[in-house]
Amino acid sequence: MTPTPQPARPGHALEELVEALRRLPGVGVKSAQRMAYHLLQHDRPGALHLSGALRQAAQSVRHCSRCHTFTEADVCSTCADPRRDTRLLAVVETPADQAALERSGSYNGLYFVLMGRISPLDGVGTTDIGVERLLQRACDGTVEEVVLATGFTAEGELTAQALATALKARGLKATRLARGVPVGSDLEYVDLSTIAYALHDRR
Amino acid sequence: MTPTPQPARPGHALEELVEALRRLPGVGVKSAQRMAYHLLQHDRPGALHLSGALRQAAQSVRHCSRCHTFTEADVCSTCADPRRDTRLLAVVETPADQAALERSGSYNGLYFVLMGRISPLDGVGTTDIGVERLLQRACDGTVEEVVLATGFTAEGELTAQALATALKARGLKATRLARGVPVGSDLEYVDLSTIAYALHDRR
Repeated sequence: MTPTPQPARPGHALEELVEALRRLPGVGVKSAQRMAYHLLQHDRPGALHLSGALRQAAQSVRHCSRCHTFTEADVCSTCADPRRDTRLLAVVETPADQAALERSGSYNGLYFVLMGRISPLDGVGTTDIGVERLLQRACDGTVEEVVLATGFTAEGELTAQALATALKARGLKATRLARGVPVGSDLEYVDLSTIAYALHDRR
Repeated sequence: MTPTPQPARPGHALEELVEALRRLPGVGVKSAQRMAYHLLQHDRPGALHLSGALRQAAQSVRHCSRCHTFTEADVCSTCADPRRDTRLLAVVETPADQAALERSGSYNGLYFVLMGRISPLDGVGTTDIGVERLLQRACDGTVEEVVLATGFTAEGELTAQALATALKARGLKATRLARGVPVGSDLEYVDLSTIAYALHDRR
């Protein structure tokens, strides 16, 4: 990763900034203009701070060699924590999903972060999400159960099914998070397929 | 404007980036995370490009000494254009509004960009939007008519009224963009107050 300072077009710094902001996901030309005007009019220290944070992150953040999440060290702090239960490995789509599991306070195992999910419509297949890397990690002799914690969307389910097949072919135990009625829901507002799953998996 | 490189907290580059992205208008913590993950996972050149564009713009963009819009020169290209009609001065809220007037192809005068509007709820008054600077600019002896082209929102109308009062007190002619039915509209879908204005100002 070599930093390549972009040659600035003299006299077009504002247009260049709007163009650069448009590359952020979910930001169109109107939002990019609003962001640029805001930073230049009201928050130049914020613009310089963001500039430094972008450069720093792009240069120093890499992937944990064990769980593939973002980290600046070779192994992330979660993988390096000796108090974690090394027999459990939860597979999640993103670091945000990992953080959600952590916040629940109910999981003390380790993680594997796919950094994506299988999506045939976007041309993302099993190789793109690093299934081989996951299989290597899961076959370290310590992991006893892989908890598939990908999302309960169509793409998340597809990913979980593909991973379950690959893991079982290696003789590994793969489980899936339970589907059911969310805590705090009135039944009348819960969608039908969730109720169907909750009935089927009743206990 | 002195660039102040931010001291990076070692090991927290990702968190720092998310925090810095949250300072952009309209970006909450979820969007900031999505942006940071996207840049680090799929577009590191984009992150470095944005970093450079932010630094360049924050350091080189200033205000035109005549119309107050963003520019890197002392006087912006529009104010410096000798083909412009110097007797007309349109007052707009933002560079985006100025661009909209330009795109219409119906205006060949000069501009004054407020970079804001009066907003009592946000504590923005007449001094904050540079009314003194506008009066100085409009009293250069060449301007014959000030076209108030602030928005037709409550705040834009308030701003236009305040400016009209101040301009007329100096003996300057102030006009306002016409209100009426937008081109391409079916009358049945036009709101009532617009129809009332269109009836009142019929010609």
